[in-house]
Amino acid sequence: MSQRVLQRYFPILNWGRSYTRETATSDLVAAVIVTIMLIPQSLAYALLAGLPPVVGLYASILPLVAYAIFGTSRALAVGPVAVVSLMTASAVGEFASQGTPEYLGAAIVLAFISGLMLVLMGLLRLGFLANLLSHPVISGFITASGLLIASSQLKHILGVPASGHTLYEIFGSIFSHLGEVNFITFVIGISATVFLFWVRKDLKKRLLSMGVKPFWADIMTKAGPVAAVAVTTLLAAAFDLGTYGVRIVGDIPSGLPVPQLPDFDSDLWLQLAGPALLISVIGFVESVSVAQTLAAKKRQRIEPDQELIGLGASNIVSAVSGGYPVTGGFARSVVNFDAGAATPAAGAFTAIGIAVATLFLTPLLTHLPQATLAATIIVAVLSLVDFGAIKRTFAYSKSDFLAMASTIGVTLFFGVEQGVVAGVALSIALHLYRSSRPHTAIVGIVPGTEHFRNVDRHPVVTSDKVLSLRLDESLFFANSRYLEDRVYGLVSERPNIEHIVLMCPAVNDIDASALESLEEINHGLSDSGVSFHLSEVKGPVMDRLQSTEFIAHLTGKVFLSQYDALCTLDPQTAHISESRTPKKAAKSDIWAGPEI
Amino acid sequence: MSQRVLQRYFPILNWGRSYTRETATSDLVAAVIVTIMLIPQSLAYALLAGLPPVVGLYASILPLVAYAIFGTSRALAVGPVAVVSLMTASAVGEFASQGTPEYLGAAIVLAFISGLMLVLMGLLRLGFLANLLSHPVISGFITASGLLIASSQLKHILGVPASGHTLYEIFGSIFSHLGEVNFITFVIGISATVFLFWVRKDLKKRLLSMGVKPFWADIMTKAGPVAAVAVTTLLAAAFDLGTYGVRIVGDIPSGLPVPQLPDFDSDLWLQLAGPALLISVIGFVESVSVAQTLAAKKRQRIEPDQELIGLGASNIVSAVSGGYPVTGGFARSVVNFDAGAATPAAGAFTAIGIAVATLFLTPLLTHLPQATLAATIIVAVLSLVDFGAIKRTFAYSKSDFLAMASTIGVTLFFGVEQGVVAGVALSIALHLYRSSRPHTAIVGIVPGTEHFRNVDRHPVVTSDKVLSLRLDESLFFANSRYLEDRVYGLVSERPNIEHIVLMCPAVNDIDASALESLEEINHGLSDSGVSFHLSEVKGPVMDRLQSTEFIAHLTGKVFLSQYDALCTLDPQTAHISESRTPKKAAKSDIWAGPEI
Repeated sequence: MSQRVLQRYFPILNWGRSYTRETATSDLVAAVIVTIMLIPQSLAYALLAGLPPVVGLYASILPLVAYAIFGTSRALAVGPVAVVSLMTASAVGEFASQGTPEYLGAAIVLAFISGLMLVLMGLLRLGFLANLLSHPVISGFITASGLLIASSQLKHILGVPASGHTLYEIFGSIFSHLGEVNFITFVIGISATVFLFWVRKDLKKRLLSMGVKPFWADIMTKAGPVAAVAVTTLLAAAFDLGTYGVRIVGDIPSGLPVPQLPDFDSDLWLQLAGPALLISVIGFVESVSVAQTLAAKKRQRIEPDQELIGLGASNIVSAVSGGYPVTGGFARSVVNFDAGAATPAAGAFTAIGIAVATLFLTPLLTHLPQATLAATIIVAVLSLVDFGAIKRTFAYSKSDFLAMASTIGVTLFFGVEQGVVAGVALSIALHLYRSSRPHTAIVGIVPGTEHFRNVDRHPVVTSDKVLSLRLDESLFFANSRYLEDRVYGLVSERPNIEHIVLMCPAVNDIDASALESLEEINHGLSDSGVSFHLSEVKGPVMDRLQSTEFIAHLTGKVFLSQYDALCTLDPQTAHISESRTPKKAAKSDIWAGPEI
Repeated sequence: MSQRVLQRYFPILNWGRSYTRETATSDLVAAVIVTIMLIPQSLAYALLAGLPPVVGLYASILPLVAYAIFGTSRALAVGPVAVVSLMTASAVGEFASQGTPEYLGAAIVLAFISGLMLVLMGLLRLGFLANLLSHPVISGFITASGLLIASSQLKHILGVPASGHTLYEIFGSIFSHLGEVNFITFVIGISATVFLFWVRKDLKKRLLSMGVKPFWADIMTKAGPVAAVAVTTLLAAAFDLGTYGVRIVGDIPSGLPVPQLPDFDSDLWLQLAGPALLISVIGFVESVSVAQTLAAKKRQRIEPDQELIGLGASNIVSAVSGGYPVTGGFARSVVNFDAGAATPAAGAFTAIGIAVATLFLTPLLTHLPQATLAATIIVAVLSLVDFGAIKRTFAYSKSDFLAMASTIGVTLFFGVEQGVVAGVALSIALHLYRSSRPHTAIVGIVPGTEHFRNVDRHPVVTSDKVLSLRLDESLFFANSRYLEDRVYGLVSERPNIEHIVLMCPAVNDIDASALESLEEINHGLSDSGVSFHLSEVKGPVMDRLQSTEFIAHLTGKVFLSQYDALCTLDPQTAHISESRTPKKAAKSDIWAGPEI
């Protein structure tokens, strides 16, 4: 393997070489802050995924190291995230019940398959697949997931058993258990939620106004969840609240995970392949968006295809070390960046912090109430819910709004996988529908110039025997039949027409279907005595057409400009236009050369 | 219902009013010729669909009348066609064995569902769905179907029992029965095939050179299959070949079909819904292509959405009268057109011809060897196989070729439904892949002009602090992330850049995803000290942008022309360019107005 290839697949070789003491200090400070933030998050998201909380910690150690070696973003912080945890619960819930070894085993296999898929997609450079998820679909999906996650945590706040993967199931289940609400759990849950909201909204401002330095104000704000965890754990331990029906985390196996390979059960693998693909793509999109945004702020670059490999490696080692699917998280990456993380080493330092916590803190977490973790989740995910985006999308584009609204509706009422698939399918269908009716305009010459404009919008002169049709879109299979229909329709309404000129300044591509439609039009028009011409064809499009028989069969000509076409086919009209205003317009050669 | 709406949904009200005696004569002549052609075809295609031959006749009576009332094409001849018959066999074969009443019942239900779907699609104006089938996919599918059909008929030529829906199954089955070849059947089959090929290739030329009038030469050529049927039936009857193991059509219930509603078995309906949709779409595409081509020759129009209703009505009455799925056939429509059919009444006259044949000819067909029908099918479908199209597509576009080759491969080796689905999915994916990497060019000013050209292709002058990037594609979800990546990449390579100008003359649309990407780029660049500008934005695109916050947040400006942009941002470079050649270029205002 050449040096260059090695550097491409191991970005650590680039930044590692110039690693200095100053960089190390920045990275260490960032790592401390992210560690404080990540401990309660890891426990909480594991709970959301239906897994023992310690699995969240396992998923926050080796994956960070793997990303530090293979990832290209300098500030991305990987680990368990809310949306992927929800998707894990939904996927694994089909095969096993929460709390069983089969459930944990399936979550580990899910991470492993997802990791393999990501690496494979990276090696095959399939990063573009993420583009199939449009912004409105992602935004709608994340809003819906946030609502779904918050709802699913209500049971922990109320202290009732409940289950379900859709809004309907969740609330149905909660209502049927409303009589069993545990009052102490409810008090802890509500207090923690109110406290965390207050920390998020108000604490930093208050600390700053009290004269606390911004750096410390920031750390204290980030430590809010840690404080909530510590206080409620102490209370639960002091009063032995577990015996009063308050659900606590319970005994956590301490020590680091022992690496081992996941189950190779071909049935399970096949059934998890679909969900794993969706988790991979969603995780990748979430991660790469954050990474790109942060990199741009410092004029740095990320390599999307190498990011796939980085995230894939993270998921594989997550599985091998008993964790579940991970990806780059938005909030923690921003914190990492703001705290000054300069290289991926910050991630490796964070991993050490989490490892130490796993070794020494887990015995202290036995009495941690699940309601506290639920409060952490609710406060975190409600910030994902973005109703403003729905409003903005509605105002900007009805068809994007339709895709977004369907994604939200299907996710909430049918499930997360269905939501993503419906959103992607609908946005592709709507795109093809829009493309299938390209904008076309009959154009006439602006008197005294060589310019042509839409007859419906401008006072222009048109010819009786030459019909000029401008096409404002590339030609491909979805709209080629429409063009046939449009041209035949125009000809059938105008018995005097002798020439049709198709003006192509905005046609960037003509695929095989469109080529056949053009041949069809040429043939059909020739039978009815009309010749077919093209004008202002772009260079590369013309290059390809020239290799076909279409140009040889063309009953008309290909003109460099629409003005040339009119001068040749109906000089009188072109002339009238000139004589009206004596000023001779400059000859435009914009489309003349073999441009692009 | 208003007169206009009535006329829209019942095109017969338009042409029926001006129906004259001359038109009637033309229509009658065409009907006679099409009837002669359609009788053996109907019997043969029913056999191909695995149905009793008489079902083919049933499917050629009422459907033609329904189309005459509801259809908009004046020359389209509907009835059983090869590809749809193959798809029927494949769909129904999943639920019942050939020859059972359940098999026939399922084929009838298939026609009924397909008819309902077509009518519904027509009322909802979903004709554009047919655009999802690109030309290469259709052409590949038809070629593959032709090969598959010809192979499936070999068993009748050889007189062996065989089955299967893929090339592999068909040939595997034939080889395992090779020992059971019936020699007399084989002789009849081969002779009929050779005779029919000779008729198709050679007879007309020979008759013309013998002084036969073209009209009669044409009819005699078209009557070739009828002659083959008559001669082999007589031979089989005379020598009672049925007793020698030659498979004959056998007793056909004579008389017209008794109208009755199909089975309403919800399980069956659900399972046939998928295949029915595919059959509907494929049938519609085949039919509408022919109809459009023929209409164009006479400056007539067809209404695709009304065509859906016409074909839907045909399928519903086909089901009600004991037939199976029908659509407009290519060969017979061309014959109908050439023979002078002037209105859809020709179809109704053909229906009468077929009804008479069903009443009086069926008893004569008892001894008709199946090998003769198989020969008719083979000769007909091999003309569908178009290897030239494969070569042309390969030369013109590798990605279209890939879609075509996959359609052919999957159809031949996995089945017809799989082939269509794979082709459509792949052509959409390839389209999105192409769109996901739009063409962009860094442009510089052509000295002495106000024109900008690709720096890689032209000797142009560029600015040190202004980077001008031209985008040659509409912006939407599939390529918006690519743009972010491209812009950030360019900036990271050029530390001195202060301004980026995105030149948008070819951008016809910006969807919500792309808008968000532009905002992201604006934001990201602003953090790294680069301002972001747009130039030459089209009128309607600008109108929509103006309603968003993007323009308010934009760190730079929107320039009417790229030249304005350079003059404002780096007058020196714009100036250098002018001073080199004294000639003042005319100011282009091509993109200035709120055009389109």
